[in-house]
Amino acid sequence: MARPTRVEITEVGPRDGLQAEPKFVPTEVKIKLINELIDAGVKRMEFSSFVSPRAVPQLADVLDVLNGVDRRKGAVLAALVPNAKGAIRAAEAGVDEMIVFVSASESHNQKNVNRSTDESLAGFAEVAKIADEAKIPVSAAIATAFGCPFEGNVPAERLGYVAKHFVDFGFKSVALGDTTGMATPPLVTRNVRYLKEHVPELPVHLHFHNTRGIGLVNVVAGLDEGVTHYDSSFGGAGGCPFAPKATGNICTEDLVYLMNEMGIETGIDLEKLMHIASEVEDAVGHPLPGQVMKAGPRLQLHGMGDVQTAVG
Amino acid sequence: MARPTRVEITEVGPRDGLQAEPKFVPTEVKIKLINELIDAGVKRMEFSSFVSPRAVPQLADVLDVLNGVDRRKGAVLAALVPNAKGAIRAAEAGVDEMIVFVSASESHNQKNVNRSTDESLAGFAEVAKIADEAKIPVSAAIATAFGCPFEGNVPAERLGYVAKHFVDFGFKSVALGDTTGMATPPLVTRNVRYLKEHVPELPVHLHFHNTRGIGLVNVVAGLDEGVTHYDSSFGGAGGCPFAPKATGNICTEDLVYLMNEMGIETGIDLEKLMHIASEVEDAVGHPLPGQVMKAGPRLQLHGMGDVQTAVG
Repeated sequence: MARPTRVEITEVGPRDGLQAEPKFVPTEVKIKLINELIDAGVKRMEFSSFVSPRAVPQLADVLDVLNGVDRRKGAVLAALVPNAKGAIRAAEAGVDEMIVFVSASESHNQKNVNRSTDESLAGFAEVAKIADEAKIPVSAAIATAFGCPFEGNVPAERLGYVAKHFVDFGFKSVALGDTTGMATPPLVTRNVRYLKEHVPELPVHLHFHNTRGIGLVNVVAGLDEGVTHYDSSFGGAGGCPFAPKATGNICTEDLVYLMNEMGIETGIDLEKLMHIASEVEDAVGHPLPGQVMKAGPRLQLHGMGDVQTAVG
Repeated sequence: MARPTRVEITEVGPRDGLQAEPKFVPTEVKIKLINELIDAGVKRMEFSSFVSPRAVPQLADVLDVLNGVDRRKGAVLAALVPNAKGAIRAAEAGVDEMIVFVSASESHNQKNVNRSTDESLAGFAEVAKIADEAKIPVSAAIATAFGCPFEGNVPAERLGYVAKHFVDFGFKSVALGDTTGMATPPLVTRNVRYLKEHVPELPVHLHFHNTRGIGLVNVVAGLDEGVTHYDSSFGGAGGCPFAPKATGNICTEDLVYLMNEMGIETGIDLEKLMHIASEVEDAVGHPLPGQVMKAGPRLQLHGMGDVQTAVG
């Protein structure tokens, strides 16, 4: 299959990148970052979450953030909703899109939201109804889609089982979440092909983490299967609760850099992204794992006197 | 072209990874690391360099390291030689292989070794003679093969020009060095194809840096062209003089992890590599960028009580 010539990148930094940061990022800084992302050309974003403020204090300001963002440019501002209560709040707030999530593996879903996957799916029927009445589209995400930190490998059939429910609910897409960085190129190929064959009506998005250093290799495996939608986080913000020293989400600038160099359009300005990533570093108060923000674009040339090179 | 089912990884950590580390790694620690690498299954290594001890004090102990390593397992211990003087020392020391290097771009070669590329190539004729008399094979490396931090893009013809000299000298292979992390998948494809067409008798090795986060993606581009030899560094040790905050060489453990998951044999034990990388962190006194050493293998499972996951 020919690789796509254009991909759509969903910036998940404001939600997935920041949610576990211990230092609260002021609401006005979040608003500024989101406005700058939109200005850089980001067309869809996970801007925040309607989960419990006690569970995720960083995102407790979801309403203020939404009300503060300049929405005239029409970028899609999507929010995570864990259940019907969250969906009602999201509908009242007027988000552009709701995102529901369930883990492919029972144990991770139990740990994450304290219910079985079937209980989560049953709850989504309610979310679908609320969203439908509010005329707000819903997309879905499957966590631990490439492996579970408690159970290990996850069969593709499990993704198919969950994804078929999403079709029934009228959801617009499914993102396969590599929650703890267990995705590998062969698993990307297997899962994408399985869903294209068994649930062809549901577009597949890919949400990789770089926990084991191969996040962008997995993107290329997705491109080889024709996938055109990828999630990433500014500066690579976000981590992995199971590996505190490891990185989390793949980095938006590094992804855009790679797409640029591969001749694949994103519509997003790399220089602006690099600037935003450095602002995110300031906001969270520690370095982020993104590489291009540190090295600069490849044709940013140096003068001969700039540095002393090591011999060899 | 079908991807290879086996690749050979040259561990360059003891030379490229350590050469710019400011803290001197004791000779006995270097010897221990090299012995452990051999025990882990590494078959070829850049173990040190015969450059001036003033230029690279970290590698001034090259003779003691060579004499201290257990060579009974037959791993190839290769050393960098910058000129005839270095080749004489390397031959006397009894290295298994010499590696000469020249930059594809004039300005980088001038900056790195203070001579033109033609002057470097002329010097290699002498090295070839010394090595031939000592019956020691020579391989070659081309720095700035995917771009120069002073000049920008480097034409493939430039690599061909240099590589043809290597054939004349009887060198056994050429490593294309991504000195400052400017390689991209299309450039990998272009350069490998050009050399296979114009200098087919010379095997091509690939030496990538992860300076802009896409080092392993470039490996996959190399696999797609049938390249079977890759350089990498333990823990991702090594940096980039042009981007002090950025990383350098691609990481051996992350590369081996990726190859394992892609079903490509390396003959190297991942668990042992992870242990060695943590020892290298101790030796250099700071964290290294490798990811798998922090996250563990993908099927290293957790208990349900181990961590609190963030919702979503």
